[in-house]
Amino acid sequence: MATATGLLGAIADVGVDRARGGFSRHGFDRSDLTLREWFVAEAAARGLDVEVDRNGNLWAWWGRPGPDAVVTGSHLDSVPGGGAFDGPLGVVSALAAVDELRARGFVPSRPFAVVVFAEEEGGRFGVPCLGSRLLAGTLDPDAARRLRDQDGTTLAEAVRAAGLDPDRLGRDDEALSRVGRFVELHVEQGRGLVDLGRPVGVASSILAHGRWRFRFTGEGNHAGATPIGDRHDPMLPASHLVLAARGAAAAVPGARATVGRVVPVPGGTNVIASTVDVWLDARAADDRTTRSLVEDVTAAAREAAAAEGCRVEVTEESYGDTVVFDPGLRDDLAAVLGGAPALPSGAGHDAGILAARVPTAMLFVRNPTGVSHAPAEHAEPDDCEAGVAALVSVLEHLAGGAR
Amino acid sequence: MATATGLLGAIADVGVDRARGGFSRHGFDRSDLTLREWFVAEAAARGLDVEVDRNGNLWAWWGRPGPDAVVTGSHLDSVPGGGAFDGPLGVVSALAAVDELRARGFVPSRPFAVVVFAEEEGGRFGVPCLGSRLLAGTLDPDAARRLRDQDGTTLAEAVRAAGLDPDRLGRDDEALSRVGRFVELHVEQGRGLVDLGRPVGVASSILAHGRWRFRFTGEGNHAGATPIGDRHDPMLPASHLVLAARGAAAAVPGARATVGRVVPVPGGTNVIASTVDVWLDARAADDRTTRSLVEDVTAAAREAAAAEGCRVEVTEESYGDTVVFDPGLRDDLAAVLGGAPALPSGAGHDAGILAARVPTAMLFVRNPTGVSHAPAEHAEPDDCEAGVAALVSVLEHLAGGAR
Repeated sequence: MATATGLLGAIADVGVDRARGGFSRHGFDRSDLTLREWFVAEAAARGLDVEVDRNGNLWAWWGRPGPDAVVTGSHLDSVPGGGAFDGPLGVVSALAAVDELRARGFVPSRPFAVVVFAEEEGGRFGVPCLGSRLLAGTLDPDAARRLRDQDGTTLAEAVRAAGLDPDRLGRDDEALSRVGRFVELHVEQGRGLVDLGRPVGVASSILAHGRWRFRFTGEGNHAGATPIGDRHDPMLPASHLVLAARGAAAAVPGARATVGRVVPVPGGTNVIASTVDVWLDARAADDRTTRSLVEDVTAAAREAAAAEGCRVEVTEESYGDTVVFDPGLRDDLAAVLGGAPALPSGAGHDAGILAARVPTAMLFVRNPTGVSHAPAEHAEPDDCEAGVAALVSVLEHLAGGAR
Repeated sequence: MATATGLLGAIADVGVDRARGGFSRHGFDRSDLTLREWFVAEAAARGLDVEVDRNGNLWAWWGRPGPDAVVTGSHLDSVPGGGAFDGPLGVVSALAAVDELRARGFVPSRPFAVVVFAEEEGGRFGVPCLGSRLLAGTLDPDAARRLRDQDGTTLAEAVRAAGLDPDRLGRDDEALSRVGRFVELHVEQGRGLVDLGRPVGVASSILAHGRWRFRFTGEGNHAGATPIGDRHDPMLPASHLVLAARGAAAAVPGARATVGRVVPVPGGTNVIASTVDVWLDARAADDRTTRSLVEDVTAAAREAAAAEGCRVEVTEESYGDTVVFDPGLRDDLAAVLGGAPALPSGAGHDAGILAARVPTAMLFVRNPTGVSHAPAEHAEPDDCEAGVAALVSVLEHLAGGAR
């Protein structure tokens, strides 16, 4: 019988990023396709029937598909140089839970599935929760098809290469209508459970969050031959934006603003950039606070751009309002788990997308470092098994099995 | 008989950079090797004998090699997304000048060569004037062999793949001793000649200049789940550096400080970077001013890093003190050219490296945009031909031919 840690070990050589450390596994790239094949094989070995939906999400059914199914799962892709747990822990825990339920002689009394959502991190095409957003209809399929990765490949091309029909991307009510309740297990991305001394908790909410690309355009020129007074260097307003984002977020309790990605073009040491792209990740407790934070940063960016004689263009790449998980389901699961604590999440999740359509819950597993989206992300084997045990209890409760 | 513009046209499809615009031709990459082959063929077509020196510089000899040779030439590599003229104009003008001298029945009375220096821009291995520095012995060959490009390929591996012996890289007095005088023709990288209404000028000096890499190390983490107060985000001190560099340079007349290249790792939108590398290009009239400017920027970077709980490591990647070109040769050539104006250069050149060892001069050709290291870099065909005519006059004068 597989353990979560054992299953993670089986994929520990896929998508290793030697340059950044950790893993780089992005939607429909070679590593991701390898992981998807691995998942299909693991599901088949358990007698589960795998379906690929129109948006590339994988559904492994124990028995007949939907309706009113209990569904659990997460994603297999990572951020660039990400950790081993964010995403895969929820998938391997689901597989391990199926093994445990089988070993107990459990047979679900309602449809049951393990799901793997496509491109949750947006590491390749920029939009997080790509697969679940398309499924739920919160992302325009035409816009999605035109998304490009850093090599210029469109999402349409990438899904076609993966054997999907790009014309069929988009809202899939048939697939979604099968889901009665969704539970995503995930490594915690903070130290809440460490501070509480508990291995497992349930999620209460997700911050409102989004991504904005600021494109500063100036005048590319020679770094030595161009006098300071003649410059229109987009790196200047880009740097002002980074500092303004920090200042704006620090002024609002619980808010976050981050610039983790900056791309100057052409990017030569002895060249004043002609354009600099800066991505702002901003989050806060509610929609109004998040919007106001981004407006403040945008105003600072516009002012700094004007002062340098540069232009700035702002594009909202994704946005998700605050998610409050179904309170009844949350309390029900917390009780099943003997009073598991409820924690808010600063991170977005596919569960946050599904929550708008179906009763949804999340389980968090303790992360001793509190670090996530980095190689230091961790969960101890005992805590991973505690997570599986919790998931088993929850699934047994929700899928109302007969022995 | 070839014109400079015609010869540039012949290589206009090599190393086109569709992402950045302009050209990306870097030392010993495919584009550069294509250009080197093209040069060897052009030299052969003119009956010139091409030698490759130990450092990969190409010498095309008209008659017997050295000593006391008159040498002209430049480089064929570019910055990322660079213009068509910086480098190649000096090489094609040299070839066109040979044609014109031949047509006039000129036979040099002393050895004569056209040279192409390797990796002048440092676009691949980070050290500008790589070929001429190695030749002149101002770059340690062990350090050079260990230089790596962005893909991790070392210079040793790259030159071996190009058919050179990496163990032979380094100071080459035999090759250098052949050079009596060196003249490099180059597109102007500013508007000096535009303002003067002259097509051609001579160089007076080059600013002291260098490149420093600042590596800021913080703590990679999740952009949503990590409270602002817990962050050690290296993007913050990196941005402070950009602004401090501008402030420091603006305070010193004639000084320049530029950040054109920033590399956050891992570089994900929803990830606080773990490290950010920032390259500072700094230049000023003299060594002391340049050093003091870089010290000011370094102090600001250290302070900003400490405030964010980050570390910073500073590496000098290259440095060249102020160059004052041989005043006798400069005035001699200005007189030959009917009183051509003398202009300082903010940009570094192979001529600046050779100037420490042999009498060296430069000719500049008017650039109507003043822009360089960018696709907008330009020289009108008439001005290019005026450059060739000037080079012919200079070479005729220096090589003291008999008809």
